[in-house]
Amino acid sequence: MGKIKLTVAYDGTDFSGFQRQPGKRTVQGTLEKLLTRVTGESISVIGSGRTDAGVHALGQVIHFKTSVPIPTERWVRLLNASLPRDLLVTEANEVPLEFHAQHDACWKHYRYTIDTSSLPDLFRRRYQTHYPYPLSCVRMQRATGYVLGTHDFTSFSAARAQVKDRRRTLYRCEVKEVDPGIFSMEVVGNGFLYHMVRILTGTLVEIGAGKISPEEMGEILQAKDRSVAGKTFPPEGLTLMKVGYTPWSGKP
Amino acid sequence: MGKIKLTVAYDGTDFSGFQRQPGKRTVQGTLEKLLTRVTGESISVIGSGRTDAGVHALGQVIHFKTSVPIPTERWVRLLNASLPRDLLVTEANEVPLEFHAQHDACWKHYRYTIDTSSLPDLFRRRYQTHYPYPLSCVRMQRATGYVLGTHDFTSFSAARAQVKDRRRTLYRCEVKEVDPGIFSMEVVGNGFLYHMVRILTGTLVEIGAGKISPEEMGEILQAKDRSVAGKTFPPEGLTLMKVGYTPWSGKP
Repeated sequence: MGKIKLTVAYDGTDFSGFQRQPGKRTVQGTLEKLLTRVTGESISVIGSGRTDAGVHALGQVIHFKTSVPIPTERWVRLLNASLPRDLLVTEANEVPLEFHAQHDACWKHYRYTIDTSSLPDLFRRRYQTHYPYPLSCVRMQRATGYVLGTHDFTSFSAARAQVKDRRRTLYRCEVKEVDPGIFSMEVVGNGFLYHMVRILTGTLVEIGAGKISPEEMGEILQAKDRSVAGKTFPPEGLTLMKVGYTPWSGKP
Repeated sequence: MGKIKLTVAYDGTDFSGFQRQPGKRTVQGTLEKLLTRVTGESISVIGSGRTDAGVHALGQVIHFKTSVPIPTERWVRLLNASLPRDLLVTEANEVPLEFHAQHDACWKHYRYTIDTSSLPDLFRRRYQTHYPYPLSCVRMQRATGYVLGTHDFTSFSAARAQVKDRRRTLYRCEVKEVDPGIFSMEVVGNGFLYHMVRILTGTLVEIGAGKISPEEMGEILQAKDRSVAGKTFPPEGLTLMKVGYTPWSGKP
């Protein structure tokens, strides 16, 4: 019995999210179906975490157990030959049996992209949120300072989130104007609450648009109240870029 | 009665091409339906030319006649509010009644993009053709010299094309490696035969891959025989960038 870690990329547009659901097209479901067919075993796939419907990934990580002796370097080509065009395996590694894609993840990197042009970019509209109003990059950058570090992120968590401990640590939160009128927010943290990146983005946008001041970011955080933060921004602008693992839990 | 010229952009992925066809989702059909609804008149749309199913456009040009006195600057916003997300009006101009989007077009600019990376780019796969084999840019560039100017392009025309005069003039034919492993071919000409850009691309790729020599491009052209040229490359890599008009037929 061996354990395989796969790095997978997907265009979330036509998936009902990562998590398996009966009768729906999901990333986990699609991978499990193919792996079960390829190995002849009943394969369960564990991901580093879920992504919502419409959210993309360039570096999602999953693991599964198998006793089929396929050489590691063969998995990528083998799976990509049968996967649909919006789901891709980019890397395969054999990992120790103790490795766990979810429990051993020590950080995740998300990117949120906003297009403020008056007309949406036809070829990138599935991967960036169209918000045709001016934003001040400087104001948003000033606001990001307040959320770096360890905080209770209750204000930035969907009200229906059931988790108890809402402290998370953000290692990086950066807003850049990557092309004229195109803003990207890069966030790296040790974990994220439900909708956290999308609410963080919605709040930064209100600050960038001048509706609230950058300094209010600190007050919103301290309020621990979802209703004081900004809107939940739509899924299409969000991409899971990378999941980091400690070196002792398999290949970093 | 006035005449309106629109510049339109579309993602060709989910259209059965430009030309109206009963029971199919086409660009012309979608525009006519919306314009008819908005104006209350029965509107016919004339395009600069057709594009095949799956081919994209950033600068397709169409015209239509209407007696509804909507100010020119209003058309863009008005139509975009009701158009589907993969079809966009980028510019509107009132033009003289003599203007004709097809007959007055004096050049068209097409771009074909090829991705030679081993894995396809998930977010750009709808707009570039994945061809995961090495290509020599220099070889392709040398070959383009042979097709510049006025020639009979029979070898680069789909066999079923019915047109008699197959002479066309290419003003520009340039191959560039725009990003590592990403090649774009820019072609500007006074007109194009059916599948001409896609066959030209297929032939350049055979030259770039070392299957035939750059010098053979001249012989292929002179043969006036479709069977000696390369394969017809798929539609997804092709985009109609711009249509040029002479100044005396409306706004250039």
